[in-house]
Amino acid sequence: MIRTGVQQMARGLCQIMRREISKGNFNNNIRQQMTPRGTLQFPWSSINSVRTMAVLPWPFAFQPRDFSLPNTSWGSDMRRLYEHYNSQCEVETDDGEKKWGVWRRLPSYNRSLKYATGGVYLSKIIQSKARLFTRNIREQGAAFEYVVFVNKQEQKCVCVFQAGHLLEGPPGHVHGGAIATMIDTVTGTHATYLSGPVMTANLNINYRSPIPLGSTVLLTCSLDKKEGRKTFVSCQVTNTDSSKLHTEATGLFLSITMGHLLGG
Amino acid sequence: MIRTGVQQMARGLCQIMRREISKGNFNNNIRQQMTPRGTLQFPWSSINSVRTMAVLPWPFAFQPRDFSLPNTSWGSDMRRLYEHYNSQCEVETDDGEKKWGVWRRLPSYNRSLKYATGGVYLSKIIQSKARLFTRNIREQGAAFEYVVFVNKQEQKCVCVFQAGHLLEGPPGHVHGGAIATMIDTVTGTHATYLSGPVMTANLNINYRSPIPLGSTVLLTCSLDKKEGRKTFVSCQVTNTDSSKLHTEATGLFLSITMGHLLGG
Repeated sequence: MIRTGVQQMARGLCQIMRREISKGNFNNNIRQQMTPRGTLQFPWSSINSVRTMAVLPWPFAFQPRDFSLPNTSWGSDMRRLYEHYNSQCEVETDDGEKKWGVWRRLPSYNRSLKYATGGVYLSKIIQSKARLFTRNIREQGAAFEYVVFVNKQEQKCVCVFQAGHLLEGPPGHVHGGAIATMIDTVTGTHATYLSGPVMTANLNINYRSPIPLGSTVLLTCSLDKKEGRKTFVSCQVTNTDSSKLHTEATGLFLSITMGHLLGG
Repeated sequence: MIRTGVQQMARGLCQIMRREISKGNFNNNIRQQMTPRGTLQFPWSSINSVRTMAVLPWPFAFQPRDFSLPNTSWGSDMRRLYEHYNSQCEVETDDGEKKWGVWRRLPSYNRSLKYATGGVYLSKIIQSKARLFTRNIREQGAAFEYVVFVNKQEQKCVCVFQAGHLLEGPPGHVHGGAIATMIDTVTGTHATYLSGPVMTANLNINYRSPIPLGSTVLLTCSLDKKEGRKTFVSCQVTNTDSSKLHTEATGLFLSITMGHLLGG
């Protein structure tokens, strides 16, 4: 079989990428990229240029859009809560130096590991067009607007979520599946932050009161316990001042290596 | 306060609509429209012309697109299973007459009760642009392609679901939230078919094996029990020949009147 130089090079890059994945060097959940210590970095900064080329559309690597940053669709509640937590991500010492605060804002992309599908057969069309479910709508404010902050010290995590008009279920209210999607996303992110790569094994969701379309809510997650490969996380969805409980849930996550997912 | 004739007329139509809703004449879930006996009709056929005008964009009522019908994005598995169940929706008697079979295909729209938000305050922009979460993507095949069939005799329900490239979670696989969304949709539809208007109270989902992006799966629902206002439904998500279990879940649904949702 004859391959062109470009094909060989692309194949080599993919192999490097898959080796890194099988060594567990990548966050399988692709929700966020973190170093093992939990400190945050720009998602590609820990990856050398060759691997970056394998991750991003070759040959032109570009800066992907970070969806966790404010945009013009964000309402006053969303902006206020974003500022509240974001202002605690970096603090100034008495000497005027800046250092990390107790919270970390997690960046969010519409896809990260473009070629990390390994053992799964996907058509080229699906592969090239695939997008993260929660970031698949181009129109700002139409669907999921959210930002996640984690607090390593208290082992908790909050997500400020504004539900757009394309998430309707019962008339005028957010679809139960859209709420489940945010719960899976945030509890999964928290479990990954605490335990490294995980897969969702169970979600148990109690819907208490419907969420009006267009409103902003808070998802607050905390660690219940860790047992071997299992991480148990609980989550509450409330209005912005936490006076009304909309939904509560528990999530069970299993630690995995990328090999589990790639079938290798 | 002075109102123009058009404003008064529009207000009158909305009042009629809300009266019907408060009497429980409408399926609150808006997933499908059924008569009390569970026989299927074109969703607007049981509503007189005045109410139709209140439901559809006034003054020009149109036929909304039925998303449960085949389109060019459907793969061979999706088409084959659609044909399998659809061929059992209508049977021919020995006399050559046609009659209902054991299955019913449920039509599916991207929104039904345009003005049924009653007590919920929504901005005019959100109100006019709201779309059902599972039918909010215009591109065929990109997200949720599904069709639901119910079997009154056996009190079961199946959904053929093709997961598009915009539903990605773990690389190359369907997002847990997208699976939860389909489970909520299909179990909720089944509960509505059995018990009338309901709201989701609990979903308990066990994820057994990930679903590759682009694949077609079957959701099979059955009634577990009914206790007063509660309807318990279970659901299994399998590959198309039911040899592999991807996800299993239970759903608890509470019977309601539209007044519950509208806060009236």
